[in-house]
Amino acid sequence: MSKETDLIEAIKRRCPANDSIILGIDDDAAVLRPNENNSLVCSDMLMEGTHFLLETASPEAIGHKALGVNLSDIAAMGGKAQSAYISLAIPRRLSTGDFVDRLYEGMTRLAALHNTAIAGGDTNIWDGPFVINVTVVGETHGKGAILRSGAKAGDLIFVTGELGGSIEGHHLNFQPRLKEAKQLMDEFDLHSMMDVSDGLAKDLREIAKQSNVRIELDKDNIPLRENIKQDPNALKRALTDGEDFELCFTLAKADAERLMAAKDFSHCRKIGEVKEGSGLYWSTGEAISWQGYEHGAGL
Amino acid sequence: MSKETDLIEAIKRRCPANDSIILGIDDDAAVLRPNENNSLVCSDMLMEGTHFLLETASPEAIGHKALGVNLSDIAAMGGKAQSAYISLAIPRRLSTGDFVDRLYEGMTRLAALHNTAIAGGDTNIWDGPFVINVTVVGETHGKGAILRSGAKAGDLIFVTGELGGSIEGHHLNFQPRLKEAKQLMDEFDLHSMMDVSDGLAKDLREIAKQSNVRIELDKDNIPLRENIKQDPNALKRALTDGEDFELCFTLAKADAERLMAAKDFSHCRKIGEVKEGSGLYWSTGEAISWQGYEHGAGL
Repeated sequence: MSKETDLIEAIKRRCPANDSIILGIDDDAAVLRPNENNSLVCSDMLMEGTHFLLETASPEAIGHKALGVNLSDIAAMGGKAQSAYISLAIPRRLSTGDFVDRLYEGMTRLAALHNTAIAGGDTNIWDGPFVINVTVVGETHGKGAILRSGAKAGDLIFVTGELGGSIEGHHLNFQPRLKEAKQLMDEFDLHSMMDVSDGLAKDLREIAKQSNVRIELDKDNIPLRENIKQDPNALKRALTDGEDFELCFTLAKADAERLMAAKDFSHCRKIGEVKEGSGLYWSTGEAISWQGYEHGAGL
Repeated sequence: MSKETDLIEAIKRRCPANDSIILGIDDDAAVLRPNENNSLVCSDMLMEGTHFLLETASPEAIGHKALGVNLSDIAAMGGKAQSAYISLAIPRRLSTGDFVDRLYEGMTRLAALHNTAIAGGDTNIWDGPFVINVTVVGETHGKGAILRSGAKAGDLIFVTGELGGSIEGHHLNFQPRLKEAKQLMDEFDLHSMMDVSDGLAKDLREIAKQSNVRIELDKDNIPLRENIKQDPNALKRALTDGEDFELCFTLAKADAERLMAAKDFSHCRKIGEVKEGSGLYWSTGEAISWQGYEHGAGL
């Protein structure tokens, strides 16, 4: 057997399955049971040198991140992740040894936590840098998908956790907020939601634009990650560093007050308010000019 | 706006939609209507220097191939392609100029031919080589998916067209056999099917293995592509070159005879027979030892 065939056989043995999958990686395509609710599909590519450095990230962490950014996208729609499809371009020097095995260890551990099957993919060896693409298929919650375009004037805005300084470690070991999204959907009527991947400033501008609303943030209520609290640029970093993978969502005032009173949702922090108009502002009235993370900019 | 934002905006404007898609590329994930039949998912990564050379393949041809190999996988399951998700790692020097636009031209033209939406993706710029990953979501025919594991002793084996010598051009401009697959499914009871991507020898070994059968091929009936007919190694090339993207399928003798008599299916060529046992042989009794294309081997 070739090295590639060996690799593929080793991968097959460790891929988790679940009820959504009729047939996994043994054919030209995976076969999935039809969903009752709408389906969700997202796909993200991570490249060596841009999204991680092989010198500082373990193979398990890279696998965790590659699957995690997609699970975070499914969480951001208020959905459930069902199956993942993994494409790899593996540098020849990493095709022997335990790199691929440890990469899959990071993915299968996270997949198991969220009952997500790994049901297909494409394994290639080449002389270029390491590239991994993950596609995740999921299903919406019975209430439907929560979109970026649903924010309404009068909504309050929340995030599910701390922001900024992700590059020091969080971007490799974050937990996608699938469970938190489900809990929120079960209890409240969310109007809009997205995950904070490009930085709160850039991501909220997207909600403001798609919802045709003005967003006002409270400077004092932005939750800062511990490792940036002493940084004089802490607030800017919380709004622009990106890769926080917390959920940012809006809901009507009555629901928001119920949420703030509930013990189960104490990780959620109110950070601002939705108003009529357009653009992103501080509650003091100044415009927020900070931009977010640019994918194309590299490290 | 950044170059990346410009690129993404230009891409959005040209992406075809269809009825399977409720929401395309404007949110964290695409939202799809539930399918009545089972769903199909496949994903393939193409890398510069391995699957195409930028010096000899036009951007349109690369786009055509990247989507086409996935449409061919859906055809091989006997399914319909509904939506595609495109991830790009674009070398910085190609991020300006018309490269991405022409790449999408190749994809949208092919997508339109098969009523396939382009509903999402991930666009990155970096300093590495060009990498494209395409995931396609589809739906099975009402009769169900045609698997590699369904061949039965007594079946006759067919291919939908000529084999070998794909590298001289066919691998960049082949037509995925979606319409042919549907026509076959409508008229006949196919037992097993796959697309010829790694070479007939390697691919038929997969059917033999998964179906627990012996496969015998007729040397004289393998359809050779015009450009290899004079090559003394023509037969070997037809069995091992790969990237033919014709369908190879098996069906019971009675159905096969009906197929051979039907004018609409004159492009289908009977190449052998399924027997009890295991392995890949010539009808004369000799074992076929030729291997197929190895993805990891590069050009």
